[in-house]
Amino acid sequence: MTGPDDQQAFQNLQTSFADRHIGTTPADQQTMLDVVGQPSLDALVRAAIPESIHAAPVTDSVIPAAVGETEALAELRAKAGRNTVRRAMIGLGYHGTHTPAVIQRNVLENPSWYTAYTPYQPEISQGRLEALINFQTMVSDLTGMATAGASMLDEGTAVVEGMLLARRASKVKGDAFLVDDDLLPQTRALLDHRADAVGITLRAFDPVAGPTDEQLDGAFGVIVQYPGASGRIVDPSSIIDRVHAGGGIAVVAADLLAMTLLASPGDLGADVAVGTSQRFGVPLGFGGPHAGYLAVRAGLERQLPGRLVGVSFDADGAMAYRLSLQTREQHIRREKATSNICTAQVLLAVMASMYAVYHGPEGLRFIANRVARTTSALAAVARDAGLQVVHDAYFDTLTLRATGRAGAIVAAAQDADYLLHQVDEDVFQLSVDETTTPDDVTRLAGVFGAVDVTVPATEAVVRDAATGLPTGLLRESEYLTHPVFSAHRSETRMMRYLKHLSDKDYALDRGMIPLGSCTMKLNAATEMAAVTWPEFAAIHPFAPRGDVEGYLDMIGDLESWLAEVTGYDTVSLQPNAGSQGELAGLLAIRGYHLANGDTERTVCLIPSSAHGTNAASAVLAGMKVVVVACDENGNVDLADLRAKTEQHADTLAALMITYPSTHGVYEHDIREICDAVHDAGGQVYVDGANLNALLGHARFGDFGGDVSHLNLHKTFCIPHGGGGPGVGPVAAKAHLAPYLPGHPFAQQADRRPASTAADDRLAHAGGPVSAAPYGSPSILPITWTYVRMMGLEGLTRATEAAVLGANYVAARLRDAFPVLYTGEDGLVAHECILDLRPLRDATGITVDDVAKRLVDYGFHAPTMSFPVAGTLMVEPTESEDLAELDRFVDAMLAIRAEAAAVERGEWPADDNPLVHAPHTASSVISGEWAHAYTREQAVYPLPGISARKYWPPVRRIDQAYGDRNLVCACPPVEAFA
Amino acid sequence: MTGPDDQQAFQNLQTSFADRHIGTTPADQQTMLDVVGQPSLDALVRAAIPESIHAAPVTDSVIPAAVGETEALAELRAKAGRNTVRRAMIGLGYHGTHTPAVIQRNVLENPSWYTAYTPYQPEISQGRLEALINFQTMVSDLTGMATAGASMLDEGTAVVEGMLLARRASKVKGDAFLVDDDLLPQTRALLDHRADAVGITLRAFDPVAGPTDEQLDGAFGVIVQYPGASGRIVDPSSIIDRVHAGGGIAVVAADLLAMTLLASPGDLGADVAVGTSQRFGVPLGFGGPHAGYLAVRAGLERQLPGRLVGVSFDADGAMAYRLSLQTREQHIRREKATSNICTAQVLLAVMASMYAVYHGPEGLRFIANRVARTTSALAAVARDAGLQVVHDAYFDTLTLRATGRAGAIVAAAQDADYLLHQVDEDVFQLSVDETTTPDDVTRLAGVFGAVDVTVPATEAVVRDAATGLPTGLLRESEYLTHPVFSAHRSETRMMRYLKHLSDKDYALDRGMIPLGSCTMKLNAATEMAAVTWPEFAAIHPFAPRGDVEGYLDMIGDLESWLAEVTGYDTVSLQPNAGSQGELAGLLAIRGYHLANGDTERTVCLIPSSAHGTNAASAVLAGMKVVVVACDENGNVDLADLRAKTEQHADTLAALMITYPSTHGVYEHDIREICDAVHDAGGQVYVDGANLNALLGHARFGDFGGDVSHLNLHKTFCIPHGGGGPGVGPVAAKAHLAPYLPGHPFAQQADRRPASTAADDRLAHAGGPVSAAPYGSPSILPITWTYVRMMGLEGLTRATEAAVLGANYVAARLRDAFPVLYTGEDGLVAHECILDLRPLRDATGITVDDVAKRLVDYGFHAPTMSFPVAGTLMVEPTESEDLAELDRFVDAMLAIRAEAAAVERGEWPADDNPLVHAPHTASSVISGEWAHAYTREQAVYPLPGISARKYWPPVRRIDQAYGDRNLVCACPPVEAFA
Repeated sequence: MTGPDDQQAFQNLQTSFADRHIGTTPADQQTMLDVVGQPSLDALVRAAIPESIHAAPVTDSVIPAAVGETEALAELRAKAGRNTVRRAMIGLGYHGTHTPAVIQRNVLENPSWYTAYTPYQPEISQGRLEALINFQTMVSDLTGMATAGASMLDEGTAVVEGMLLARRASKVKGDAFLVDDDLLPQTRALLDHRADAVGITLRAFDPVAGPTDEQLDGAFGVIVQYPGASGRIVDPSSIIDRVHAGGGIAVVAADLLAMTLLASPGDLGADVAVGTSQRFGVPLGFGGPHAGYLAVRAGLERQLPGRLVGVSFDADGAMAYRLSLQTREQHIRREKATSNICTAQVLLAVMASMYAVYHGPEGLRFIANRVARTTSALAAVARDAGLQVVHDAYFDTLTLRATGRAGAIVAAAQDADYLLHQVDEDVFQLSVDETTTPDDVTRLAGVFGAVDVTVPATEAVVRDAATGLPTGLLRESEYLTHPVFSAHRSETRMMRYLKHLSDKDYALDRGMIPLGSCTMKLNAATEMAAVTWPEFAAIHPFAPRGDVEGYLDMIGDLESWLAEVTGYDTVSLQPNAGSQGELAGLLAIRGYHLANGDTERTVCLIPSSAHGTNAASAVLAGMKVVVVACDENGNVDLADLRAKTEQHADTLAALMITYPSTHGVYEHDIREICDAVHDAGGQVYVDGANLNALLGHARFGDFGGDVSHLNLHKTFCIPHGGGGPGVGPVAAKAHLAPYLPGHPFAQQADRRPASTAADDRLAHAGGPVSAAPYGSPSILPITWTYVRMMGLEGLTRATEAAVLGANYVAARLRDAFPVLYTGEDGLVAHECILDLRPLRDATGITVDDVAKRLVDYGFHAPTMSFPVAGTLMVEPTESEDLAELDRFVDAMLAIRAEAAAVERGEWPADDNPLVHAPHTASSVISGEWAHAYTREQAVYPLPGISARKYWPPVRRIDQAYGDRNLVCACPPVEAFA
Repeated sequence: MTGPDDQQAFQNLQTSFADRHIGTTPADQQTMLDVVGQPSLDALVRAAIPESIHAAPVTDSVIPAAVGETEALAELRAKAGRNTVRRAMIGLGYHGTHTPAVIQRNVLENPSWYTAYTPYQPEISQGRLEALINFQTMVSDLTGMATAGASMLDEGTAVVEGMLLARRASKVKGDAFLVDDDLLPQTRALLDHRADAVGITLRAFDPVAGPTDEQLDGAFGVIVQYPGASGRIVDPSSIIDRVHAGGGIAVVAADLLAMTLLASPGDLGADVAVGTSQRFGVPLGFGGPHAGYLAVRAGLERQLPGRLVGVSFDADGAMAYRLSLQTREQHIRREKATSNICTAQVLLAVMASMYAVYHGPEGLRFIANRVARTTSALAAVARDAGLQVVHDAYFDTLTLRATGRAGAIVAAAQDADYLLHQVDEDVFQLSVDETTTPDDVTRLAGVFGAVDVTVPATEAVVRDAATGLPTGLLRESEYLTHPVFSAHRSETRMMRYLKHLSDKDYALDRGMIPLGSCTMKLNAATEMAAVTWPEFAAIHPFAPRGDVEGYLDMIGDLESWLAEVTGYDTVSLQPNAGSQGELAGLLAIRGYHLANGDTERTVCLIPSSAHGTNAASAVLAGMKVVVVACDENGNVDLADLRAKTEQHADTLAALMITYPSTHGVYEHDIREICDAVHDAGGQVYVDGANLNALLGHARFGDFGGDVSHLNLHKTFCIPHGGGGPGVGPVAAKAHLAPYLPGHPFAQQADRRPASTAADDRLAHAGGPVSAAPYGSPSILPITWTYVRMMGLEGLTRATEAAVLGANYVAARLRDAFPVLYTGEDGLVAHECILDLRPLRDATGITVDDVAKRLVDYGFHAPTMSFPVAGTLMVEPTESEDLAELDRFVDAMLAIRAEAAAVERGEWPADDNPLVHAPHTASSVISGEWAHAYTREQAVYPLPGISARKYWPPVRRIDQAYGDRNLVCACPPVEAFA
């Protein structure tokens, strides 16, 4: 009988997920270390990371030792089992919906969609750009607006953006904003918090009576909920007219499904429409992620915050999609941006748009009619049972009065597995959605006490019912008339359309996406598995606490794990994007200073190298931005920092600093920097965008940070989804905890604004920054599973592999492209900036040319011209294997050689494969070939490319044309001829 | 308030799945009817289907009215809830396994893999062909054989094929086959049944003693189970040597995981290795589908049954994969074929091969060692608890003796959620697999009565244990040394490899696959959903009845539904391929005649137009094939049939006939044909391949069929998976029920061979035809969901739409390509044969040229040269929409115009886009262009193609070269240079 074999491996009886997540094997790593000139991984990180911030080894980590994929999913299943799925009829902006299986399988569960990046490289993103322009068309059609953006983070933040837009666009110079009493309560809480920070006063009014003249005076705009949160439908026309009369802007928060039957905001004269597309096939998910929307009338397009897809043409004159008006965005405009919104909810917007494509206008109308009739049927049985139906006009939501009995009825409904919304002891409300069946009506009739209601009888009532829609407000305008909303009615067609679109795009499933500052790492299949489990997907954000224990448990795990790895005391997972995490952190600093009576502390220092979002967020937190210079090494200029802290000693609120820096290096002076700010009475905000370079080796909280946001969609494996969703938790020291975001509907009492720090040192009692109490919880299982399968040791190893990858690329490319900044020992952190300015000066070849030429080589370009114009920032992440790193390096070297040929005059400056990149198949096949280089040189510049060729569907896109000639809805079919 | 809207739609309160499944809208159908010249769908089918067989409308259908996708899944969830998932340690060829999530998501749940067809068009199937050659390499490496086929249906049928191969290849002319006493019991039952039909005598022997000289005499071969069913490992060398000495063939049924540690069959001198690859990542699934395997030593390659992938070169000299030696197969050789096996288990073989690619040799060895050590640890605790470990040498399976207590222990284990296998009252056995943990060992120790065993202690034991492997049989030969088994170790790499392969292939997610006789219809995402639910996926085929009530319930539904739509009394779902369904049906006929004393009834009449499988199956059922002529209209020649029945009146066993015919028409005389056979004492076997043309309109049982097989992978939406899995239920009249396949382990008593018709008129008491009692049950939820969501009305509508589609294509193409056969009123059934022989005579352009040219137009070719050489048979199915049908027709017309240009001499006969088709991107880009047609004409022959271009990865493949120079394993990497 044989004895043990390979004893080492048997120390751990299971194979390690970390070995699957990390792309390089130990042997590969040794090869790479030789190139980098370091003896070991440990030596590398010890050399790269300043000794002053090395973290002490964690003993008694709260993060349990890693388990395998099966065990992690089993634990998550156990948590899922502690959530209770009931029919959620709470409404308030969140509704049950059927995700079409063809969309779930081919979008939500398909890496070709979910691992894609934001479409900044439009030539290799035409598929999702088409899906997004379908979304924009759907929203602008249904709301009757001229132009819709490519999605907002949720309805609540969309309303805030609408308010800010109204202030910018209004002719009224006042600071008051009129707010409908029947606004969704969570939207109102968000508005309160956000308006306060930017000096806006909210004036609430009864929607039936309308605002008083006094209220109208000095009000730059109005927000109306349509239909109202109570379900009541009031014609907003007269309010709109009155606001318009004074020069104000009218914002309408509209339900998209109701808009298939009701006159649209555009029909009624509104300037801005906002809302959510959740009920178009996107699971409830305990609150998110969902795609909010924002749309505007003609004339306000350039005021839109966030992403906007438009039409332009490529170098061959073919129509092509791209992101329009990026000059509005925070990464360009910084503190002058119209919004700090950075990411969108692309994956969810794609799903919602495909729901509309699949159902088409007649299908949506049918669903809406069924909802409206079912609601009427419920109103009838409620009346039969002696309840009062409070409002006469409604679409899907009934407010019901049962004096003294509301609590009992809501409780009885819960026992029957229905969640209703109790307003007070006499009143409750419920919302019907597309999943509500006659059987549900029948069972609710029983709960209400109606007798002798049968399912067949209910079916007959639903079939024949009149709706509760007011006759005078019925929709007459057409919508979704573009052929795309009629062409894909069979599942076969739909499946092929989704495949056709994803085939055009480059995502992580094709090759590396070495985007500096974006950390495009593996999104493992096991991590994604739980997202579609009903116990996570079918939970309403305002479900009772007893129904969400599994969610809260998972959230608790994540909060404690993230606090430990960052060195903070508390974490909030509410912010549903990095930008919102920043804002939440800055609002916490603001709250802290105000609570201390430091009302003048409003100056926010921001290094010149910072993400533009930093500056934009600071403005939205009511701060004034003061820029701190950087030295020639890319580090914060300590002298300038000291000068600025001195200059603003009485008004200093905070410093925002990214660590490692946006220049991809570990700054040596980070402790001194933090100390200087603290000495001046300021707080230190450490931007966590680059946390992937630190995990297990250094902690923000240890070296001086007071608060940070993290990006779960970077460091913690939530996929980028083509430009969202994201999660941007905010982590802080205990003194800031009371000012972290709470939420009026939070299931945990210590996460409600009403709670005070007296109850619990770490209670979060600030105002909300997201519509839902826990932001986008349905994607948190991804991060939970990642950390559970990696353990602290795996996270630490991942950091090491990521830093090694960046240093390997830097070492191999340094001779061809100077590495702009390095830190200790000439090492970079987890990314490196390649300076292409010398190349441009020598050859005329620009960073754009190189980026587009990389497409011909089968790559997504690195980050272009951030943080330094004329550079490429490369972040390989730990998930790439050595062969892929080498393929990238070889491509870059080959491109450098091509540029050299231009320099030598072998190819003209205006006719070489770089300036004409990327090349489509058609461009090298059709017609005569009249270039200085060959067809093969155009598209097969290296051996091996032909065997795995990715063909971009369009050539280089004219960005300026698209901005000058703004078209942001589906172009007519003839345009493609 | 508004009143009802669109009242018609509200008659049914939900949207209909049938409207999503059927590609053509009512408006499209009217357009198509106009072209066909029929006023309505009803008129069309009434005109096409002979009046004599029109089915009466079904009243009180057993098929419930259709429900929507959500409701159907909810019902299926309820059934799933009635299955109990326990740790299955029953073994006997079925083992728990972890399906790597990256493989589950990107293969099993990805339509690009599962909707693909058999790779008969190798130029557009290179991805799955590469995956299959990986499978072949994996099997031949692990078994030590020279050549492995591309998978068998399961281990049991693979052993049968091994036995038949041995008979063909043996120098011994006897009819005896030696059978190991320690063979898997289900394999033995299958062998008994199949050997009997073809006149083979089985001689059982004790593997330790070996066969006696008497047994060896006249034995053409031997089968040895290695390790044995009891877990015992016996060195089979001496048995092999003794059989070889007499000129016989040695077949070894080997466990692939054990082969990573044990000397392989090849190492030990075996001629043939057989088995299953299930435990390589393929879920148990209550028995299937899984990929069986069969591999042979050098010299026996051309004896291999089933699919075999080999290497050849394309027109540009690039290496390319293709199916080798198809001339062996039943569709060419008919009754002289080596096997009736038609489909393989491609999707499962792909999964198993990718499991090996992902783990690599060292990963598999680690898993096997862990299994072996865990088994030793269990042996130790069993001994501690006073049990006797019966065998000294074992890998993963222990036979344990506990006198008088076996039943009690097995019951106690079940209470602890472990399934063990009770052999008799004293003995039970259990098998360890890769999912078995130290916790399981600890819990089983408790069941056995061992005391004070803790998990940490067990972990230590497993880490340190010696295995039960006999030292003298340890493996020394290498395996999986090809780089493909080492290159994809990270999940990112694996995901990209799978994407890269699927990108090469054309599947239903790209466009239509109009394969006559194959019914490539939609495989809806909702239908696929349940396949991966643990309650269906993680069930052992021999689990106790109480654990599988949900499965049996679903199977019961399907049996009654399929019986109703075919007009039969009973259905068996056991056959796991159409060919096996045929065989089961013919064996039932055989059993029936024998039971009646009609021992001479062995003649099987088969029309000349029949599928080759018919003839091959008849031979395997012990019948003699007599061919019946067809007339010039493609129908059975009634006069010849009558002559043949008369000639063979005393020996007539059966007629096999396909309806509608393989010529794609509804034969008028079908009743007369059936009557003639019955009058002569024969049985009528109706091949159900074309059932999609009949559902709801005519029934086999009504017009004279006694027995039929159906193809759930054609008519009932199980995806083709790139060449399997399939399910081929056999349906019969009551008099044949006792001879339908039973199974010794069937959970239902009336499905065991021991049962008799006396108990139940419809009991199935024949021998098994598949290794598992219910064949491939884990994919039956697909069919269940389809029928549940369509209802009888939807199935009927689907038939109508399919018939309309075929007639529309025929009508539009008839002027360009004569439609070879039509029935009543000039109509075809659900497919049409286009005669390309006139084109070839006029232009030299062959059916091959047209088929390959269709690739350039973005299509999978129709069926080529079946059933008539020089033709294309087109079956659009009901799932294609009108735009796709028109795209196909337009392509065919454009190709006809190209051929006309050749005819006119505009292009030379040897240099035109047809003879050079298909064109790769590289072929029109690289080098000088020296053809008579342009690059654009080569690859963009019609407007619109460029926007959705599918690029084949290779050009036309040299089939003859590959057959002459047989290479069936992964070629060295240099070969691709």
